[in-house]
Amino acid sequence: MANQLGKIVTLTTFGESHGEAIGGIVDGFPADVEVDLAFIQAEMDRRKPGQSSIVTQRKENDCIKILSGIFEGKSTGSPIGFRIENSNSKPKDYGHLANTFRPSHADFTYTQKYGLRDYRGGGRSSARETANWVVAGALAKLALKSLGVKIFAHVTQVGHLKLDAGNDLDFSEIEKNPVRCANKAMAIQMENYIKLIRSEGDTVGGVVECVVQNPPINLGEPVFDKLHAALGHAMLSINAAKGFDYGSGFTGVAMRGTEHNDEFTLKNKVIGTKTNYSGGIQGGISNGENINFRVAFKPVATIMQNQNSIDSKGKEVVLKGKGRHDPCVVPRAVPIVEALTAFVLLDFYLLNKTCKM
Amino acid sequence: MANQLGKIVTLTTFGESHGEAIGGIVDGFPADVEVDLAFIQAEMDRRKPGQSSIVTQRKENDCIKILSGIFEGKSTGSPIGFRIENSNSKPKDYGHLANTFRPSHADFTYTQKYGLRDYRGGGRSSARETANWVVAGALAKLALKSLGVKIFAHVTQVGHLKLDAGNDLDFSEIEKNPVRCANKAMAIQMENYIKLIRSEGDTVGGVVECVVQNPPINLGEPVFDKLHAALGHAMLSINAAKGFDYGSGFTGVAMRGTEHNDEFTLKNKVIGTKTNYSGGIQGGISNGENINFRVAFKPVATIMQNQNSIDSKGKEVVLKGKGRHDPCVVPRAVPIVEALTAFVLLDFYLLNKTCKM
Amino acid sequence: MANQLGKIVTLTTFGESHGEAIGGIVDGFPADVEVDLAFIQAEMDRRKPGQSSIVTQRKENDCIKILSGIFEGKSTGSPIGFRIENSNSKPKDYGHLANTFRPSHADFTYTQKYGLRDYRGGGRSSARETANWVVAGALAKLALKSLGVKIFAHVTQVGHLKLDAGNDLDFSEIEKNPVRCANKAMAIQMENYIKLIRSEGDTVGGVVECVVQNPPINLGEPVFDKLHAALGHAMLSINAAKGFDYGSGFTGVAMRGTEHNDEFTLKNKVIGTKTNYSGGIQGGISNGENINFRVAFKPVATIMQNQNSIDSKGKEVVLKGKGRHDPCVVPRAVPIVEALTAFVLLDFYLLNKTCKM
Amino acid sequence: MANQLGKIVTLTTFGESHGEAIGGIVDGFPADVEVDLAFIQAEMDRRKPGQSSIVTQRKENDCIKILSGIFEGKSTGSPIGFRIENSNSKPKDYGHLANTFRPSHADFTYTQKYGLRDYRGGGRSSARETANWVVAGALAKLALKSLGVKIFAHVTQVGHLKLDAGNDLDFSEIEKNPVRCANKAMAIQMENYIKLIRSEGDTVGGVVECVVQNPPINLGEPVFDKLHAALGHAMLSINAAKGFDYGSGFTGVAMRGTEHNDEFTLKNKVIGTKTNYSGGIQGGISNGENINFRVAFKPVATIMQNQNSIDSKGKEVVLKGKGRHDPCVVPRAVPIVEALTAFVLLDFYLLNKTCKM
Repeated sequence: MANQLGKIVTLTTFGESHGEAIGGIVDGFPADVEVDLAFIQAEMDRRKPGQSSIVTQRKENDCIKILSGIFEGKSTGSPIGFRIENSNSKPKDYGHLANTFRPSHADFTYTQKYGLRDYRGGGRSSARETANWVVAGALAKLALKSLGVKIFAHVTQVGHLKLDAGNDLDFSEIEKNPVRCANKAMAIQMENYIKLIRSEGDTVGGVVECVVQNPPINLGEPVFDKLHAALGHAMLSINAAKGFDYGSGFTGVAMRGTEHNDEFTLKNKVIGTKTNYSGGIQGGISNGENINFRVAFKPVATIMQNQNSIDSKGKEVVLKGKGRHDPCVVPRAVPIVEALTAFVLLDFYLLNKTCKM
Repeated sequence: MANQLGKIVTLTTFGESHGEAIGGIVDGFPADVEVDLAFIQAEMDRRKPGQSSIVTQRKENDCIKILSGIFEGKSTGSPIGFRIENSNSKPKDYGHLANTFRPSHADFTYTQKYGLRDYRGGGRSSARETANWVVAGALAKLALKSLGVKIFAHVTQVGHLKLDAGNDLDFSEIEKNPVRCANKAMAIQMENYIKLIRSEGDTVGGVVECVVQNPPINLGEPVFDKLHAALGHAMLSINAAKGFDYGSGFTGVAMRGTEHNDEFTLKNKVIGTKTNYSGGIQGGISNGENINFRVAFKPVATIMQNQNSIDSKGKEVVLKGKGRHDPCVVPRAVPIVEALTAFVLLDFYLLNKTCKM
Repeated sequence: MANQLGKIVTLTTFGESHGEAIGGIVDGFPADVEVDLAFIQAEMDRRKPGQSSIVTQRKENDCIKILSGIFEGKSTGSPIGFRIENSNSKPKDYGHLANTFRPSHADFTYTQKYGLRDYRGGGRSSARETANWVVAGALAKLALKSLGVKIFAHVTQVGHLKLDAGNDLDFSEIEKNPVRCANKAMAIQMENYIKLIRSEGDTVGGVVECVVQNPPINLGEPVFDKLHAALGHAMLSINAAKGFDYGSGFTGVAMRGTEHNDEFTLKNKVIGTKTNYSGGIQGGISNGENINFRVAFKPVATIMQNQNSIDSKGKEVVLKGKGRHDPCVVPRAVPIVEALTAFVLLDFYLLNKTCKM
Repeated sequence: MANQLGKIVTLTTFGESHGEAIGGIVDGFPADVEVDLAFIQAEMDRRKPGQSSIVTQRKENDCIKILSGIFEGKSTGSPIGFRIENSNSKPKDYGHLANTFRPSHADFTYTQKYGLRDYRGGGRSSARETANWVVAGALAKLALKSLGVKIFAHVTQVGHLKLDAGNDLDFSEIEKNPVRCANKAMAIQMENYIKLIRSEGDTVGGVVECVVQNPPINLGEPVFDKLHAALGHAMLSINAAKGFDYGSGFTGVAMRGTEHNDEFTLKNKVIGTKTNYSGGIQGGISNGENINFRVAFKPVATIMQNQNSIDSKGKEVVLKGKGRHDPCVVPRAVPIVEALTAFVLLDFYLLNKTCKM
């Protein structure tokens, strides 16, 4: 179960970054959904490395192949197996890591827990795994299409550069700049900052926000499957994620109840709220207002500088920075955050159908 | 499954704040653990209302009664059923809420989702439920005792008052002040601030941090049951929780890889890290360093002031503030955060036993 | 999870036969179902001991108390906690069993597995647990009521006495005789045989068949949650159950495909089958024909005769037959088989709602 | 979850008989197990069609390819993804089935449930799926190897031909005859009978028994994950399975408690039982005696004769018998029964490690 997400619709995955292939199985996907393979591939392309000069120049074709569960263009209700070849794996690049532990990577903990590890490029702990998640998310988006749900993830912070209430957001900007920031001016600042960081052989963290417009109501199963808890769980599964908050989040802590409470009101004869500090979720259940949350990402652990470390025998070693890596993870995290969001929403949409006869 | 937490050891709960009783079942609890009932009751007493002047003056005896699974002072491996009577329920206090939706409560979403709701005092969505969690957490602490794990939750922020690197922490102070802050001077400031807020009929948010000393290594099951994702899921289940981060968290976003990476080193011949921005968890698995994380809580939604709202027929109504509630939830959240932490750690400790033959 | 049944609607139970109480939690029960408490108690009464001279004369009031999840006569979608007191427990009756292993009971395996056991009357392994199941089954029947499903379990074999194709069945007879056999003449033979067996201090096995009339179609989730596999799992959970088959079952083995295949035909313009060797389930999914299956029960292990055994130190001992037990378990198994059937059907009914958007 | 088996070690599968490939993911497999790929392929070969004249002459190479989770010959604790190509699929063979329902197949129920079906060769409901299970079972056997467990499945009945107490069993005979019967003389009778049945274009059912020698003790998690209930669930998942019993099973029904009770005794200073009507499982937990159970299989539904049926529009049609199919399923069911048995035992072996600290 460690490699599975979801309750009704589940994603189970496998694969190491430098093995033969990665892939997964989406089980419980609703029958009779039109599956647009070109859309799935397009989502994959949004995640893949090498899209711009501020992300890793590693090449991965990420060509998705679906093996089952689709018949004559539609989902059949049977499990959807898929596979992505690792066309650009260079296992020899990693031989020097067999017996050393890279700082703030999973090398040490995997070796310690399992007694051995596939040391080629991070193995199972590599972010290559997230390609599988984008497939599942694309399928979920196709299923949700008929409901009119819109999911926008975008970058709100890179290092110290942070959008605030004074910055206008235009979601149509997101895919137009390599940072995936919804504010054009800030996008340029962020891009320049990432280039500077990269030129120094260093990395930096960032924040991705996700906004769900027109979400289905009634999603969430209190008390232990509250919608925000499930979203938090999914987001904290992403490599390098260090935090999650929704609605007013960590900022709301300093507010008072009198300002924070979202007053109910009628909007076009439908009950809604005047403000949305709840982030679209009350008591763990979506109330129909926009859902919004944020995910914090640490600076990428792979840097282009020498670092001291310890090898598996406890001897001091110096690790040299090499390889092809992202100076900042957030631009490529955007489609991953969206994918997991879509997947969780679909899962809870189906689950909600069971709450009455 | 909505009302269940855990994988190997599970807590399943039931109960509304003003029904006859709340309670739960802890299944999969390890056999042959000595169960000290007085300790469990003492943990309950830490959570209960009315402990000091800055929390709700509502009285709940929270007398825990264990019904099964313990024989001659030891756990038998059979499920542990328990019950807590609702001795102080006053359903009549709540009749006025039958058809109205309190702002930022779960009244609206429960009614919308299920078609009806038990409107007495929040019903199932009441924080009374967390009494069940403290029972499960106390059991988990008893099981973990033999491993020498120490879990300390404490308040680091109330409103704008926030501990920072300049404030010393002394965990022995936590239970000595009503705020449960580990810094004596700040505790007094926080206490005074909460009193002020209460005198204004208002409420305020806060942050609880949790530190696990001497945690078991190897806990966490990537890629979807990473230890921090499971902790996040549990913490986000707490009423009023709005965010979770661990290690460097949201703050680490502004750091660079060169400063953020935790260099490996030998400590008493054991491999550890010089810094701990990882928060004791790398690649989703505990590495033996202290685990630390934070939970953000919003200002309590029940305020002692009039509020505008809408009733179930869409008519405008004015809600009057009354009842007995907490001006700030974090002092009483401390034992809840600890309880869930202990429960998650026990669950992952048992799960980790299965990763080899 | 060991003490939990179900996927969408789950039953989690606790309790030992001579502890303070047994009970459980039904989670995921659909909201807005009218809950007739008198019906639930009536189902309990069908299972309880002492109903006739051919079952144990032990007295258990089995008074069911529901603690949550029902509000103003309807289910709320919140978990339904319930409790049944052990009013007639006599723990002292069992002190002599502390260190001995009764043949074909669970004494030995529980002690071996958990390192200790609650030896009072079978503890957790007692069939008293099935009282919990009847509560859950009664709730399920109430939910299924609106669908017109009818569930009849009845006794088809006691020892060598076995109904065959030559015996007419009249389901209205079932509750009229103490054996719960649907054939009046056979019921009398069976009753007399059980009395004979009891007079010899012995016990005998039997078979219970279950027929579901007007079952919902489309229930079953291949390939690992086929409806018959889930029914089999539930039935094999009943104390003393040794086998399960459905449709043509073990008898169909000797048939040929040409006779065994169920030809499709139109019945009142609806597609059905001429014969029903499939037992109402094809490919793991209900097809609308009556579902039928059988459960084999061994002779009760508690006999009123001396038996040789071994104590926990490996010494030979003689166990004396005493206590109050059933000479044949099947009459009281009938309501248990029905209860689990109803519960599984409700679970799969809800699950089936998720197979499309 | 519909396509997943297991709790700690799970098998999730995908694939239709005439799609591009079938395959699966084994998650939770213990780390540090030596994985002998040749052994896995040999197990596949035992299941594949075309091994003898009494099974289908269809050719499937069933070449297994493992994609992840194995590194330098050992399992890493990461999920093991695998794939089996459908090299011999001939989708065009099945176009005539698009709108008709073959009797006693899953065509009708799949169409009814999902609204559409992959009609090529049974699609998801094809027994081709069981090739995936044999992979998982072979992996489980490799993990169990160090414990000395031996698993023998064999055919005890074909049509009316049935082994009884008078027939000697020699497990070394099983793989020497095409029926996989452990009695040489009966094997010849069964073989001849199957040939006769095939010559008539008909099919016949049978029974497979499984015996586990030297099973681990303490496997089973009462009350809802009893070992025999889990074995029953797994076996009833096999295509064409109609029944399951263990120990004395359906036959034991006619016995009395005095003869059926398994008396405890010392065997080489270890507590065991003189008889084994319990089938090695008491109270749902393995007691160390040999585990034994039986699985009933119906006659194969695909026959080489004309059959009346109904098409999707309710019109009467005649189905002509064609294709390449087994006259009797049990010889090829033997390795499948073994595979699932090994998988369930491994799962419960790992689960049992969690019952104490």
